[in-house]
Amino acid sequence: MAKPVITPIKPLEVLRRSIDKNIMVEVRGNRLYSGVLEGYDVYMNLVIKNAGETINQKSSGVFQKLLVRGDNVIFVSPSLGDSQ
Amino acid sequence: MAKPVITPIKPLEVLRRSIDKNIMVEVRGNRLYSGVLEGYDVYMNLVIKNAGETINQKSSGVFQKLLVRGDNVIFVSPSLGDSQ
Amino acid sequence: MAKPVITPIKPLEVLRRSIDKNIMVEVRGNRLYSGVLEGYDVYMNLVIKNAGETINQKSSGVFQKLLVRGDNVIFVSPSLGDSQ
Amino acid sequence: MAKPVITPIKPLEVLRRSIDKNIMVEVRGNRLYSGVLEGYDVYMNLVIKNAGETINQKSSGVFQKLLVRGDNVIFVSPSLGDSQ
Amino acid sequence: MAKPVITPIKPLEVLRRSIDKNIMVEVRGNRLYSGVLEGYDVYMNLVIKNAGETINQKSSGVFQKLLVRGDNVIFVSPSLGDSQ
Amino acid sequence: MAKPVITPIKPLEVLRRSIDKNIMVEVRGNRLYSGVLEGYDVYMNLVIKNAGETINQKSSGVFQKLLVRGDNVIFVSPSLGDSQ
Amino acid sequence: MAKPVITPIKPLEVLRRSIDKNIMVEVRGNRLYSGVLEGYDVYMNLVIKNAGETINQKSSGVFQKLLVRGDNVIFVSPSLGDSQ
Repeated sequence: MAKPVITPIKPLEVLRRSIDKNIMVEVRGNRLYSGVLEGYDVYMNLVIKNAGETINQKSSGVFQKLLVRGDNVIFVSPSLGDSQ
Repeated sequence: MAKPVITPIKPLEVLRRSIDKNIMVEVRGNRLYSGVLEGYDVYMNLVIKNAGETINQKSSGVFQKLLVRGDNVIFVSPSLGDSQ
Repeated sequence: MAKPVITPIKPLEVLRRSIDKNIMVEVRGNRLYSGVLEGYDVYMNLVIKNAGETINQKSSGVFQKLLVRGDNVIFVSPSLGDSQ
Repeated sequence: MAKPVITPIKPLEVLRRSIDKNIMVEVRGNRLYSGVLEGYDVYMNLVIKNAGETINQKSSGVFQKLLVRGDNVIFVSPSLGDSQ
Repeated sequence: MAKPVITPIKPLEVLRRSIDKNIMVEVRGNRLYSGVLEGYDVYMNLVIKNAGETINQKSSGVFQKLLVRGDNVIFVSPSLGDSQ
Repeated sequence: MAKPVITPIKPLEVLRRSIDKNIMVEVRGNRLYSGVLEGYDVYMNLVIKNAGETINQKSSGVFQKLLVRGDNVIFVSPSLGDSQ
Repeated sequence: MAKPVITPIKPLEVLRRSIDKNIMVEVRGNRLYSGVLEGYDVYMNLVIKNAGETINQKSSGVFQKLLVRGDNVIFVSPSLGDSQ
């Protein structure tokens, strides 16, 4: 039986597929943002809508819109429950 | 029913739309600046008018004009209440 | 007897061979992620499936999918037991 | 009534307009320099005349001339009282 | 008597000559890895086989294969006893 | 009366004019070096002769010649008393 | 009497002249290495022979050969007593 060919995913493709869906973003300095991804660019700058902020595991507010600079991003986790 | 096409927002577009409106900028070192965005460039260097400074959550002054170097920016949050 | 010629491995080749296999990724800030590598790019941005997170040696959750920014990667260790 | 067109300011334009005027420069490591801006380049390297230095909010000396490396700049604030 | 001409070694040449030999790699965060160098690239990304890890001078495990990101490398020391 | 035209100084010009004169260089990690500038390049790498070293405000030695890497430079201050 | 023309030294020239001579290299993290310079490149990556290591001013070993990554170099000091 032939081994199936595995096509690697391009990392930015994960962002493209997450547009209009919930994501969680870990940022340097123990900052976590979760909200709906509205946009991104190749530097991993991210635009997030209704972004809840958690600093050192304490909820610290909600931003209607947030432009997060890619430089400080540690990881982005898409919410797969969102039918991706 | 057709699924609507979602067009991602370019991150810098968020800055362009925020010109002459209130923004909040988080900068490394627990610094927060809020004021009116007057200008920006592709490096996310920002020009802010009437910029209130908050360091470690304590208000520490107001600058009539501030040129913030993009390198240190963590996020920019536009004030949507500003009718954006 | 002739000395065998040794061909060095290109570092990114290690990632290519690890696609669809288990890897462990050490990230700045004492963060460790282990899961199945789904994708990567030349910046060492990584896409990991079923990524278990360990912070300061304490298990702290599982992410169905994770896009780790290459900038913060310290090392990637492929699981050779995976028949590589 | 027509909405006025807003032309964003280029960040480096703020430096150009501040030549021969007082500025304040915040530098990483809680360093603050204030003096007369004599020159700059696109990297935000700055030449400051009669630069008073404040470290951790304590005055620590005056330099007749200072070349500050742009890499470490957090913000530059022009003195608008200077008739800019 | 003529002074002998000294030809400087290119730093990457040290890596090329260390292929299939033991090396020790110091990485930011008091991490030390020693094992057999299998590959490298111009960014000093390294592939190490049978890599013993020492953190803060305590042995903390062995990895069959390790891809170390060059960004975090402080130094590489080849084992000359290996007949280099 | 016509307002005099002000020509901004290029930051590297400050270095060029300081050749063979005393300078003081602040380097990350509370290091201060003072001596005679012998050379520089566009990265602000500096060659200093008879460089006195001060770490955390304690004198810690003199180097006959020092090549300081530009990356770590915070500022350079030329000695104007040197008839510049 | 004519003022003598001063020709600035290129920083990398200091490295070229130090080949096969003793140097001292200060590296981030309070690390000091002294030995004979065998090679270098434009990134200030250095190859050092018989490199004595001093961490926090305590001698901590000797390496027969060391490839130090330029990124972490703070300064290089050539031994002028070496007849340079």
